[in-house]
Amino acid sequence: MKMASKKSDVVVVSIFVNPTQFGPTEDFRTYPRNLERDKKLLQKAGCDILFCPSVKQIYPAGYLTYVNVEQITDKLEGNSRPGHFRGVATIVAKLFNLVQPDLAFFGQKDAQQVLVIKKMVSDLNFFTKILVAPTLRDQKGLALSSRNSYLKGDEKHQAWCLYEAIQKGRDLIQLGEEDSRVVAASMQEVIQKNPLAKMDYIALTDTRKLEPVDKIKGDVLISVAVRIGSTRLIDNLALRVGKTVYEIKC
Amino acid sequence: MKMASKKSDVVVVSIFVNPTQFGPTEDFRTYPRNLERDKKLLQKAGCDILFCPSVKQIYPAGYLTYVNVEQITDKLEGNSRPGHFRGVATIVAKLFNLVQPDLAFFGQKDAQQVLVIKKMVSDLNFFTKILVAPTLRDQKGLALSSRNSYLKGDEKHQAWCLYEAIQKGRDLIQLGEEDSRVVAASMQEVIQKNPLAKMDYIALTDTRKLEPVDKIKGDVLISVAVRIGSTRLIDNLALRVGKTVYEIKC
Repeated sequence: MKMASKKSDVVVVSIFVNPTQFGPTEDFRTYPRNLERDKKLLQKAGCDILFCPSVKQIYPAGYLTYVNVEQITDKLEGNSRPGHFRGVATIVAKLFNLVQPDLAFFGQKDAQQVLVIKKMVSDLNFFTKILVAPTLRDQKGLALSSRNSYLKGDEKHQAWCLYEAIQKGRDLIQLGEEDSRVVAASMQEVIQKNPLAKMDYIALTDTRKLEPVDKIKGDVLISVAVRIGSTRLIDNLALRVGKTVYEIKC
Repeated sequence: MKMASKKSDVVVVSIFVNPTQFGPTEDFRTYPRNLERDKKLLQKAGCDILFCPSVKQIYPAGYLTYVNVEQITDKLEGNSRPGHFRGVATIVAKLFNLVQPDLAFFGQKDAQQVLVIKKMVSDLNFFTKILVAPTLRDQKGLALSSRNSYLKGDEKHQAWCLYEAIQKGRDLIQLGEEDSRVVAASMQEVIQKNPLAKMDYIALTDTRKLEPVDKIKGDVLISVAVRIGSTRLIDNLALRVGKTVYEIKC
């Protein structure tokens, strides 16, 4: 919101929990929704227009059209959540046609989503420019997410292991480790110290095609997906690895 | 072109033989192209801007994004040409984003294409309005098509059987025939009189979901696909069947 307000004359915000990006066993029904609180926060944050359509307005009876970005949607989140990015690409195409924004802002926390949307925009010739906002974190590094509100009791403490593991990976790379298996194994150790954490994946990939890298060099995306109790969380860090190592955005 | 000139301030014409709507065994390479002749015809016909991109401009290396309209694309042409309408929907979405037309004109000859594009426009919230131009025919009723130039010798005469069969179907319906099997059988007889004609399909369907109708009533689409020698041709007629029967557009 801060980035959008700074860069735009008019800021349009959409709040829409999109059913087509949830799998049949996922948390569409329970996904956190708090429109009244969001409205107040948005007014302070410089939102000019708030767009909160109903599911029936977006997907009326007889709806049949989907946008598919191939290949990069099969990996990481797409592998764990089949159909997820079809839903993402479709709703974003619809919102772009409805709002026709010059700029659209997405968060680095969903790095693969950023890549999928950038690819869709480029392939389908949307004129909208995609800008990526950095991941916001709490004091201990937990990436802010609507799903964090699911975390109860000890789960929140153990959820810190996602960023802890990512930092461990980054530190090893900064120390010169080039073997992605070594980095991933050390990250896995960090996560396994937490009895409530169940690893979905740890991946070191390139930042374009999201293909696994063996030797770490150039631009590398470190991605983790971990279930803390029944809450599935993701986080990532994109690094440019050369003589120095620094954080980049997708 | 006449319809577009009449209804629009600025007419943009695209000429692009779209590889993604051709199957691997189809006639993409040999599909008739005559840009110099087209340019001259277009200047006379009121074209303001001609857009003839190359295949590489439209589908650069690494292209990954496709638009799928489900269900209505599995029938008729979609059944005979798997993947065809994925290519159609994708190129039209791209052209709409590139040109951003207020109006877009498509021909009734490709009735299913019209339905698929209208559905895509409605589902993906494109602002472009789709207008349908009537099928143009030669003196004997052959629907004008780029592929007619493939027809050699006796083939052109026998190609008239498509519209002959359609007229036969319409006449029977006008006479009160309500059984689609009876109508289709009579149409098939017309086509079978021509030794160079090989029927692909004759279909009587509703005009929205393209599902076969048993009893003819309401809006009905008569579709035929016939191979004349090695040239595959299609034609159709949409009818509103009530106390009177009259031709409609999709």
